Amino acid sequence: MENSSGSRVTSLILRILTFVFLFISFFILITTSQTVRPYKLHFNSYHGFRYMLATIIIGLVFNLLQIAFSLFNIVKNGDGTILFDFFGDKFLSYLLATGAAAGFGVGVDLKKKDPDDLFRTFFDKAYAASALLLFAFFCSAAVSILSSFALSKRS
Amino acid sequence: MENSSGSRVTSLILRILTFVFLFISFFILITTSQTVRPYKLHFNSYHGFRYMLATIIIGLVFNLLQIAFSLFNIVKNGDGTILFDFFGDKFLSYLLATGAAAGFGVGVDLKKKDPDDLFRTFFDKAYAASALLLFAFFCSAAVSILSSFALSKRS
Repeated sequence: MENSSGSRVTSLILRILTFVFLFISFFILITTSQTVRPYKLHFNSYHGFRYMLATIIIGLVFNLLQIAFSLFNIVKNGDGTILFDFFGDKFLSYLLATGAAAGFGVGVDLKKKDPDDLFRTFFDKAYAASALLLFAFFCSAAVSILSSFALSKRS
Repeated sequence: MENSSGSRVTSLILRILTFVFLFISFFILITTSQTVRPYKLHFNSYHGFRYMLATIIIGLVFNLLQIAFSLFNIVKNGDGTILFDFFGDKFLSYLLATGAAAGFGVGVDLKKKDPDDLFRTFFDKAYAASALLLFAFFCSAAVSILSSFALSKRS
C-alpha cells in the first residue's frame, strides 16, 4: 500500500470509532440493573458481565493511549510505533472479542430463565452493551489488519 | 526474519498443537453432562456451550485445511497462501477466543448456582474444555503473529 498517510488516517478514524462504541457500551453496562419485586438483577452479580466491564475499561484506557500515539505520528510523520501498534492492536482486538463473547454468553443463557420477560429492560441493556462491544471489536480488528500491513510497508 | 523455512515449520508445529488442543477439547465437551436425580445438566442445554462447540468444529475443519496448505507449501517451497494464511489465522484466532470466552462465561456463572458442588464433574469438564480451547487460541494467536510477519517478508 503506497498511501501510507491515508491508511494512518483510516486507522485513526477506526480507533476513534472504537472509542465511541466502548464509551457508550460502558455507560449502558453500568446502568444495567432492574428490580421486579422481590427480585433484583444487577450486572455486577455475574462474573461474565464483570469481565466484560473489565475489558471495556482496559480497552478505553489502551485505546486512548493509541489515539494519542496515532495523532503524534500523523503530526510528526514518524513511524516509531509500528511494532507497538501491531502488537497493541492484536491485544486490544482479542480482549474486546472475549469481552463481547462473555457478555453474550451470560446474557443469552440468563434470559432463558426469564420466560415471562419480566426483566426485559435488564436483558435489552445487556444485549445492547454486548452488541456495542462487538462493534468496537470489529473496528479494532480492522485496525489490526491495517497495522499488520503497515509492518510490511516499513521493510 | 531471514529464516523463512524455519518460521514456516514453527507455524506448522503451532497449527498441529492447535489441532490437538481442539481435538481433546471437542471430546471433553461432548461428554460434558451429569445427572444428579432428579436434575440433569447437559452442555447442549446452554447456548454458550453450543456456540463453543460450533467454534471448535469450525476451528478443526479450518485448521486441517491450513495444515494441508502448510505442508504443501513446505514441500513445494511455494508462498502462494501468504494472504490466505494472514486472514485465515486472524479469523481462526478470533473465533477460538470468542468460543473460549463464551464457555468460561457460561460455566463460571452457572457454577455459582450449585453451591453444594453436586455437579462437580459437569463443571470440571466444562472448565477443562474451555481451558483447552483457550490453549488452542494461544497457539493460533502465535501463528497469526508469524503469518503477519510473513507478509512483510514477501514484499
